[in-house]
Amino acid sequence: MSRIGIVGLGLIGGSLGLDLRAQGHEVLGIARRRATCDRALKRGIADHSATDLTLLSEVDLIFLCTPIAAILPTLEQIIPHLHPDTIITDVASVKTPIVTAATTLWPYFLGGHPMAGTEQQGVEAAQRDLFQNAPYVLTPTAATPAEIIATLTPLIGQLQARCYHCSPAAHDRAVASISHLPVMLSASLIACQDTLDAETLPLAQALASSGFRDTSRVGGGNPELGVMMARYNRAALQAALQSYRQSLDRLSDQIEQEDWAGLTAMLQQTQTARRPFVAEDT
Amino acid sequence: MSRIGIVGLGLIGGSLGLDLRAQGHEVLGIARRRATCDRALKRGIADHSATDLTLLSEVDLIFLCTPIAAILPTLEQIIPHLHPDTIITDVASVKTPIVTAATTLWPYFLGGHPMAGTEQQGVEAAQRDLFQNAPYVLTPTAATPAEIIATLTPLIGQLQARCYHCSPAAHDRAVASISHLPVMLSASLIACQDTLDAETLPLAQALASSGFRDTSRVGGGNPELGVMMARYNRAALQAALQSYRQSLDRLSDQIEQEDWAGLTAMLQQTQTARRPFVAEDT
Repeated sequence: MSRIGIVGLGLIGGSLGLDLRAQGHEVLGIARRRATCDRALKRGIADHSATDLTLLSEVDLIFLCTPIAAILPTLEQIIPHLHPDTIITDVASVKTPIVTAATTLWPYFLGGHPMAGTEQQGVEAAQRDLFQNAPYVLTPTAATPAEIIATLTPLIGQLQARCYHCSPAAHDRAVASISHLPVMLSASLIACQDTLDAETLPLAQALASSGFRDTSRVGGGNPELGVMMARYNRAALQAALQSYRQSLDRLSDQIEQEDWAGLTAMLQQTQTARRPFVAEDT
Repeated sequence: MSRIGIVGLGLIGGSLGLDLRAQGHEVLGIARRRATCDRALKRGIADHSATDLTLLSEVDLIFLCTPIAAILPTLEQIIPHLHPDTIITDVASVKTPIVTAATTLWPYFLGGHPMAGTEQQGVEAAQRDLFQNAPYVLTPTAATPAEIIATLTPLIGQLQARCYHCSPAAHDRAVASISHLPVMLSASLIACQDTLDAETLPLAQALASSGFRDTSRVGGGNPELGVMMARYNRAALQAALQSYRQSLDRLSDQIEQEDWAGLTAMLQQTQTARRPFVAEDT
């Protein structure tokens, strides 16, 4: 049993609190607003809750669960209150910029990214078993003390998440390619519809079915989330966009040149290549 | 009540037979193989079924439900057996090349495209109410006799489909933009993953979730179907790809130039613009 601090009691922080308390840990929840602390206590998210950072002096381990822009400022704010051997992790969806800066400020920092969520946000959205069967990536560097990894990994196991370890850069390349790139190409698909002529646009809207719905889903999602991805993971996303553009060029050339054998081979390859990416899904 | 011929008794032709018979029409089914005719009779798809085209001399109206490549050759084969006032329609998913050639061969031709389907194919896949609430596009030209439209439209209504009328060219532009283009960009998303390095590729496969699954779905589908779209709707698809590339360039430039206000505006626009395309969905 550990004493665990959670800073930020929204969907992710709140859900961590529910699961960790159920595992017998003592959870101290920090939120900016008193009302959020009260709801967290009422919902069983935390054993103690306060807006006061001094509470964190008593914990062994801290999850930083604020929005990504607040992670580093929050870390700087809490440091004066901590015992020097407190382990800190975060839940931001991009790792290189966070881990680089955070490990300079606090050597006992290990970046993390639980890849779970719902459409809802805030303390009311927190739920048990949110992380069950979801990937949870830990991103140690060469400088990460082994004992932090040894402490955090079993805790992720208690959430019944699938725990992965990789470098912050590999994490950021992977999520750029399978999460952030799809948002950008999906948004471009929606955006280009507005060049259709006045006869065709309403027809296209009427005829669009599951193919368009699925391919456009992430491009029609939360704009702030899309901008956050591009902003914090810019280099990896740009590399992914460049690689994508080469694939699109190859395919466009095949159509231009009526190379139907080449296009058939490419579409057979994508049919096969997709499977390992969706194998975990039902 | 009409006497209706259906040539090709697969998913679409067979499902049309089931629904039209249920509405009291007499259905004459033509298939290439005797075994398919027997199954069609057993399943109640047709009142009479044969491999012999002379059966079509007795019908008022014919649905050509073969694969797209066989539509025009089939039309040429059946013409010698028909009364000159027989109405002919087809179900191919691209209209301009079919309608242009078919109306030259047979003035009583009106192109059609029922936009319904399942993953399954063949006579066993045929089912009642396949077209219910699905779009069914009829593509008259300036030369189409009004009586053909007046005969076919209520028949589509009996299938409980949503019937639309437009030019073959507008149909092809619309499906290029909302159906064929998504396949190509989705396939490109899958194809570009193979440029990931040896550390990142398995991680990307493990971390891929609903965003990747949805955006890659149509690009990992039936290769023959993708090639057919590109082949028959090449000009419209190329125009759609060009328009898409301009949207992608705009978005890439915003990321390159760190124009976060511009990217926010674009993603807010796509969030709003998507809605009329998915409004019919549950």
